[in-house]
Amino acid sequence: MIQHSVIFSMKENIDTPRIKQFFKAAVELTEIPGLINFKSWKQVSKKNAFQYGLSMEFSTHEQYQQYNLHPAHLVFINEQWIPCVADFLEIDYEPLAEEFF
Amino acid sequence: MIQHSVIFSMKENIDTPRIKQFFKAAVELTEIPGLINFKSWKQVSKKNAFQYGLSMEFSTHEQYQQYNLHPAHLVFINEQWIPCVADFLEIDYEPLAEEFF
Repeated sequence: MIQHSVIFSMKENIDTPRIKQFFKAAVELTEIPGLINFKSWKQVSKKNAFQYGLSMEFSTHEQYQQYNLHPAHLVFINEQWIPCVADFLEIDYEPLAEEFF
Repeated sequence: MIQHSVIFSMKENIDTPRIKQFFKAAVELTEIPGLINFKSWKQVSKKNAFQYGLSMEFSTHEQYQQYNLHPAHLVFINEQWIPCVADFLEIDYEPLAEEFF
């Protein structure tokens, strides 16, 4: 299992209607095969400067790779992500091996 | 609901047995009231330099605050976190308001 997430901030000129458009479009990513547990987040810690997050899971690395290359993902990147997002950090988590418990 | 997580890297002198000790101790945080969905993660994206993650959820901000002040959390910070962790980023997520969908 892979939990893929991205924490990000919007560009200063991006207003609330545009932000809503962004997140409505993000939900459409859930149509991509293999993507499960999709969530949209508001980042509220004052210990970092990011404003929002998206997270999702894939059962296999192959599904994650297919997501990255999927046309719907590329459309989201071009029409939503690039116009709106100023700063971001991508995080990919796998469950820690059992030997650590 | 609040999803609290921290993404982090170990100090260079921290070896595998010490890392296992760290994560075994981390599991004991689950005894703190209100803490649910605790997970330990290996960070595998090459797009950031962090190595591990911990994530957990709380139903309310009050529970999260109680966790922060709980003696078991403070012991973990002093005996595991400070000796082992070099760099980290704290992330606090709340579900995005329904108006964004």
